[in-house]
Amino acid sequence: MADWLTSLQTDTPQQGFELALMLARKGVAYTQTSAEVREKLRSDYAENADSLTMASHVVATHFQTVAAANNYWK
Amino acid sequence: MADWLTSLQTDTPQQGFELALMLARKGVAYTQTSAEVREKLRSDYAENADSLTMASHVVATHFQTVAAANNYWK
Amino acid sequence: MADWLTSLQTDTPQQGFELALMLARKGVAYTQTSAEVREKLRSDYAENADSLTMASHVVATHFQTVAAANNYWK
Amino acid sequence: MADWLTSLQTDTPQQGFELALMLARKGVAYTQTSAEVREKLRSDYAENADSLTMASHVVATHFQTVAAANNYWK
Amino acid sequence: MADWLTSLQTDTPQQGFELALMLARKGVAYTQTSAEVREKLRSDYAENADSLTMASHVVATHFQTVAAANNYWK
Amino acid sequence: MADWLTSLQTDTPQQGFELALMLARKGVAYTQTSAEVREKLRSDYAENADSLTMASHVVATHFQTVAAANNYWK
Repeated sequence: MADWLTSLQTDTPQQGFELALMLARKGVAYTQTSAEVREKLRSDYAENADSLTMASHVVATHFQTVAAANNYWK
Repeated sequence: MADWLTSLQTDTPQQGFELALMLARKGVAYTQTSAEVREKLRSDYAENADSLTMASHVVATHFQTVAAANNYWK
Repeated sequence: MADWLTSLQTDTPQQGFELALMLARKGVAYTQTSAEVREKLRSDYAENADSLTMASHVVATHFQTVAAANNYWK
Repeated sequence: MADWLTSLQTDTPQQGFELALMLARKGVAYTQTSAEVREKLRSDYAENADSLTMASHVVATHFQTVAAANNYWK
Repeated sequence: MADWLTSLQTDTPQQGFELALMLARKGVAYTQTSAEVREKLRSDYAENADSLTMASHVVATHFQTVAAANNYWK
Repeated sequence: MADWLTSLQTDTPQQGFELALMLARKGVAYTQTSAEVREKLRSDYAENADSLTMASHVVATHFQTVAAANNYWK
């Protein structure tokens, strides 16, 4: 897989949140490598509250990591 | 998406908790971008105990991050 | 919402645990704002082992935060 | 509720693990206050692999807290 | 229960991972004390992808603790 | 089991992410030791959104550990 993650540093907390989102999706993409299948699955879970909550939990876990890496943008 | 997160610092723990809540919802909103669909889903899961517990877990995870960012408001 | 969280400091670990419990419930209350509905849901999930375990997990996550805020009451 | 948690310090990692187990159960007991109901539920979930795994996860989360409180018994 | 955990220190990360695995299983064994029942349950969940993922999550949580205890074997 | 984990240090965040992925899979492989069964299960869960999200969560948890071990590659 081509380089997609060279640093955990971001300029702002919001960019850090978006990086966390990307990490959550990469965790899926390494297992389900077909973008087509992922797209199809997304249309399912995007309409399911619990699926969305679970996905949000993964983002939260990665955001902990990214925030620590940026010393919480203090 | 417009700027919505410029800092993890809050004046009080309660504001930090409310920021954690907002982060949890943003984790959903980036995946399900339709506010209308999210509103419809909320009416479902707000009546389901396990769905609410799962959502509360995401808030708890973000609250860890926000609390650390604020040195626990000590 | 009126002030309900002014500090993460508690005198004892047990009070910290009870604060964690309160935070877990607040995570629900912000989403399901009706106390009546929450009470009705509680009678359901309080009889379900997995629901109770999930709720206990949220408490555990908040207890990590509260314990760190109190330097583990050392 | 009577005092049941006066310290997170334990002499050994194993006692810390057992404290984590107790914390996980307390997280349930505060919600389902009937020992009789909890006992009945236990006979259900003790025969279910996923229920046991979920319970083990809560213990793991509390063990993180207890281990940090004891500086990992170094 | 006889002594089974006297230290979180291990010589290598791999031994730390195996300790985390043992901790995850102990979290089950304290609740389901029958080795026979646990063995029977294992044959069920070892064929279920989600059950395996849940178990792997518990290991990951314990591995965080063990890795911190060993200063990440740096 | 042969040596498979001698260090948590990696050169880049991306390699750290891939190590986290490997740790998540090892957490499964220690329980389900048959590569054939694991391969069969993968074809199931790779088509299920929630299963993929759960797997991504385990990766996120391990990535926290690996990132801390590498001081967030700062």
